[in-house]
Amino acid sequence: MDLKPSPLALPFPQNMPEIAGVTLRVARARYKNWDRADLTYAELAEGTNLAGVFTQSACASSEVELGREQAKLGRARALIVNAGNSNAFTGYRGREAVEQIMGQVAAHIGCAPSDVFVSSTGVIGVPLPKDKAYAGVAAALEAEPCNWEEAAAAISTTDTFPKGARASAMLGETRVELAGIIKGSGMIAPDMATMLGYIFTDAAVEPAFLQELLSHSNRETFSCITVDGDTSTSDTVLAFATGKACNTPLASYDDPGADAFAAALTDMCRQLAQLVVRDGEGASKFITIRVSGAVSDESAHRVAMSIANSPLVKTAIAGEDANWGRVVMAVGKAGEPADRDKLSIAFGGVWTARDGLPVEGYDEAPVAAHLKGQEIDIAVELGLGEGRATVWTCDLTHGYISINADYRS
Amino acid sequence: MDLKPSPLALPFPQNMPEIAGVTLRVARARYKNWDRADLTYAELAEGTNLAGVFTQSACASSEVELGREQAKLGRARALIVNAGNSNAFTGYRGREAVEQIMGQVAAHIGCAPSDVFVSSTGVIGVPLPKDKAYAGVAAALEAEPCNWEEAAAAISTTDTFPKGARASAMLGETRVELAGIIKGSGMIAPDMATMLGYIFTDAAVEPAFLQELLSHSNRETFSCITVDGDTSTSDTVLAFATGKACNTPLASYDDPGADAFAAALTDMCRQLAQLVVRDGEGASKFITIRVSGAVSDESAHRVAMSIANSPLVKTAIAGEDANWGRVVMAVGKAGEPADRDKLSIAFGGVWTARDGLPVEGYDEAPVAAHLKGQEIDIAVELGLGEGRATVWTCDLTHGYISINADYRS
Repeated sequence: MDLKPSPLALPFPQNMPEIAGVTLRVARARYKNWDRADLTYAELAEGTNLAGVFTQSACASSEVELGREQAKLGRARALIVNAGNSNAFTGYRGREAVEQIMGQVAAHIGCAPSDVFVSSTGVIGVPLPKDKAYAGVAAALEAEPCNWEEAAAAISTTDTFPKGARASAMLGETRVELAGIIKGSGMIAPDMATMLGYIFTDAAVEPAFLQELLSHSNRETFSCITVDGDTSTSDTVLAFATGKACNTPLASYDDPGADAFAAALTDMCRQLAQLVVRDGEGASKFITIRVSGAVSDESAHRVAMSIANSPLVKTAIAGEDANWGRVVMAVGKAGEPADRDKLSIAFGGVWTARDGLPVEGYDEAPVAAHLKGQEIDIAVELGLGEGRATVWTCDLTHGYISINADYRS
Repeated sequence: MDLKPSPLALPFPQNMPEIAGVTLRVARARYKNWDRADLTYAELAEGTNLAGVFTQSACASSEVELGREQAKLGRARALIVNAGNSNAFTGYRGREAVEQIMGQVAAHIGCAPSDVFVSSTGVIGVPLPKDKAYAGVAAALEAEPCNWEEAAAAISTTDTFPKGARASAMLGETRVELAGIIKGSGMIAPDMATMLGYIFTDAAVEPAFLQELLSHSNRETFSCITVDGDTSTSDTVLAFATGKACNTPLASYDDPGADAFAAALTDMCRQLAQLVVRDGEGASKFITIRVSGAVSDESAHRVAMSIANSPLVKTAIAGEDANWGRVVMAVGKAGEPADRDKLSIAFGGVWTARDGLPVEGYDEAPVAAHLKGQEIDIAVELGLGEGRATVWTCDLTHGYISINADYRS
């Protein structure tokens, strides 16, 4: 986090809850030349249930391959996150490093290696150095416990600010807490899962239901953001439920409090997802794109993502230009049903095009004022059906080029 | 063409052929405040056959909608191209302007309005002004004939150099000539057709076969380029065959000379397509991406386009960085079969990653020298099958942001 904080940064929440059954520690494995902690260890109480969503990349890292298998077992005792090296595209040597970490942690706390989840983030193609990993894990296992903000900072790479969120829900008489941290800034175009995000709750939730809830929340949140349309090889979101709140374990939507917990989980995921957009590489505007009137929700989502990933739309917003013609272009190329003569487009709630025609003499002043702000709202009404979707993205600026072109790896 | 010519610009060919049966004229309709011709008129001899490919955008312009219908008739007597206003998303008023032009030209030369093809390029959402169009067409109908370079300049908008190409073929004892002009720089991600491109030949070719040849050439050329992944609402490529070479009309691949003509047409299309990439907004490098070993040619094409459209790959090339990790990422997100442990990547013919592992100690000097050049070659071997594809793109630089964000429309 040497970069200046994003202009869209939010302060780290001051009121993050303790989650009974979760202990955080960080250490310096020194994967890169960073003067900060880069290895994070979350110890989880016995009985912790787990759900996960992972990148759909065909070239996923060993961490993701192993994690997909481990997640099917639905339980966890520990999480290790390495920052500075993604260990992706490193073949058997990369896999050996992950298995070494799993064994080292499992021996320390007395659990199965498959209860130890490992994530890595950073440069692609360099095997995670086993010696640094071993020393880093050993230091983390003995370190003093730390707080959420320290852990959020330790999992970061090119992030410009640490990202966390909280939520809570009442399950009957029992209040349960959720705390989450996330990292991500570039290579963000989640395809099911995204980035590295970790959610911890003291609620008791059966693994299969926790997975159902997380997958559902993921579709409405992480799968609705994009920074640059590029999908990482390491994207992972894990949810850990320690059960220490001692509620009757949630096993289905019929259980008392399940709806409240589901809403809190989705709220948590939305907060975390939006924080990643706010730290989008070079971002100066946070853009919300709402598409309605599509033939289905899925179709609306694809149209919204086509707009969100259009370099011409993103540069227009960077230029504070209500260039709805570029929005028309992005709708047209989405490959989804659209009728030019039924299409309407609004910026900041003001319709600039209606039913396939520019709105003559619309009031430009509120539109111009809206575009000068940091929170941009684009609404598209297709006029075909009831399908709707909302996605979030950021603008495309010289900052993105500077971060990604003006250096050598 | 106020902008500095692209560093990748090529000079306009000095030896463009005369095409018997084609007369070019230009005039000033003054759609924008440009001190140059912006309306182009090509008069075509009686008996000229035509084929066309058009954008697949769901929000195409009236010109495209009408053109798709006219092309089914397979004949043409005139082409009008308006530059500075795309007339897209302008509803019935836009359509009226196109029909006015068709009628005006048809009355002048004594043909059916459906024999008059109209294209428009420029800003979206402003109906083409009928009075300027009428005066411009009237002036063009009476103008002195001009040459290919003048016509190529008149159809340009944000292009930084005029673009033309020539080809020829022997049909038995008859030599036929092909001449083509094209415009395009941004909003380039052809989905079947692309941009505005016009190809003229004196060969006699039956309309259905001309369409078959053009569609085939299009798939191998215009559909294999991308500047920014954004697909225009107006993309059109038309091929006009006047028949003045008096060869026996070509009606199928079995006819003598058909293969030679097909090869010349594809060569022409490839030249024109690559010229558009060379004028990609902000481009400083011309990038060729070759994918082999895919499960099919279609799969190879989709993987190649995923690489070509990745902002992280494009910025890495701008930064002269052999960042093959970003290529892995782009392969992984393509949604096509890929096996990380069989994947190999080369820059400028030097393998930097082989079978899922970085090549240790590869010679970095020739790779660094290659990346400093203007012509970049990326090869990806998937190791799965026989499918292959080649696509062309440019890098993503501060120039793209400047052109598209640092102004108000």
